[in-house]
Amino acid sequence: MTRIGFAQMEPRVGELERNLILLQDVLREAKQESVDVLVLPELANSGYAFENLEDAISCSESIPGGSYSKELLEYSSDGRLVVAGICERRNDSIFNSAGVFADGEHRATYRKAHLFNKEKMWFRPGAEEPPIIEYNGHVFGVMICWDWIFPEFARILALKGAHAILHPSNLVLQYCQNAMRTRCLENGVYAITANRTGTERGLAFSGGSQVVNPKGEVLLSATEEFVGIMHIDVDLSEADDKMLTPRNDRLKDRRPKLYRRIIESL
Amino acid sequence: MTRIGFAQMEPRVGELERNLILLQDVLREAKQESVDVLVLPELANSGYAFENLEDAISCSESIPGGSYSKELLEYSSDGRLVVAGICERRNDSIFNSAGVFADGEHRATYRKAHLFNKEKMWFRPGAEEPPIIEYNGHVFGVMICWDWIFPEFARILALKGAHAILHPSNLVLQYCQNAMRTRCLENGVYAITANRTGTERGLAFSGGSQVVNPKGEVLLSATEEFVGIMHIDVDLSEADDKMLTPRNDRLKDRRPKLYRRIIESL
Repeated sequence: MTRIGFAQMEPRVGELERNLILLQDVLREAKQESVDVLVLPELANSGYAFENLEDAISCSESIPGGSYSKELLEYSSDGRLVVAGICERRNDSIFNSAGVFADGEHRATYRKAHLFNKEKMWFRPGAEEPPIIEYNGHVFGVMICWDWIFPEFARILALKGAHAILHPSNLVLQYCQNAMRTRCLENGVYAITANRTGTERGLAFSGGSQVVNPKGEVLLSATEEFVGIMHIDVDLSEADDKMLTPRNDRLKDRRPKLYRRIIESL
Repeated sequence: MTRIGFAQMEPRVGELERNLILLQDVLREAKQESVDVLVLPELANSGYAFENLEDAISCSESIPGGSYSKELLEYSSDGRLVVAGICERRNDSIFNSAGVFADGEHRATYRKAHLFNKEKMWFRPGAEEPPIIEYNGHVFGVMICWDWIFPEFARILALKGAHAILHPSNLVLQYCQNAMRTRCLENGVYAITANRTGTERGLAFSGGSQVVNPKGEVLLSATEEFVGIMHIDVDLSEADDKMLTPRNDRLKDRRPKLYRRIIESL
């Protein structure tokens, strides 16, 4: 069994020191609770509601060189996996990224490819498909928040062998939680969506962080206002079984030759 | 406004004459109610639970030459669109097909590409992507039942310009109705799922036929046992608007170059 969980948090935009202390509190609790795989929200280091590019730049750090990354790296060193959303500066660009750390190593940086609303005003979109990370005999995929509405991304992670999708989020619309049940069901994977809570500059976040199993059942769900950690022990190898009937494998039954239109530009 | 609806029916396997009478009753009612776009269940002419290939062959007909098709064609002649699931014989093969008829013309035959469970024992899978049909200034896509679990197919229909997905079904699992909310939301389309009801050779069908709008909201839903027609007037052009925020177009925001893995075989 693997103990997987999320931290539902309330970062504040621009308050980097305060957000770092929130992180330290959360990681301390996760250690005490022996959580193996922990997912934090999107832009956990910085907060979300920037007003302009300078605002975003002033909240950014490099991965894994920055102070938020260093805390995550240190936490991961005794055999844990953690992923958190980080406002990332890289060369001259700012990305809405997720840093993945396991066993004391920086294992991946995913840069959000589908930007939501005003994010387009300061972030550069990622240019790569979402990554997987191997840890303790299982495979973990990463996508960020609004990626959920594009079924192509969860699908790609499943095709790359993900047992679970780690999904840092800052959700404002009410659609994602139910849609993630479909993402899990259609791909036969677990998903851990870590959302934030609170309000920033009039933008209210919907909480409701959750863990969903490969049948699309919600195993664990936070309220809108909850702050803290929730976790559950699951057998991730259940995601190896893609059969939904004695003759239907959710992935092998696909007809890739009929899907070519998916990769054509509009 | 367009009056769209479904017929939730209880065909019986092998009872072709009885099933044809059910069709005539349903079409009479649809005419009285001035339904513009009507969706019937999968395999409405034949019933579902065949025991072997001979069983399926004995229930098959050609499209549009068969007697079920002829009724549908005749019905469509005064400016209506209708789609129904038909057990189709074509050359030496049997397909789980949907015949589409509009304005007195046979407009398309879609052959189910993703077969469910025992269907693989008698049906040959379709070899083409799902079709669209233009009717009265709007675009209608067709997929059949289990196609729902493959997000690629609903996506393809949306990319081809569908305002609404017409979805003849014989559902036995309980997942589809909720998943179709995600299909509509992620693509910004309407969907009409026409399911059957009743039990055949121990196989219980779940009813719950429904109409969903481009926000993933269920506009109309039948009970498990309902038999008859339900319809609603909608503005199908709402599906032209793919924006979910001032800066997010569900289709144009896609990143096709990052989706290449979708078309690779496993």
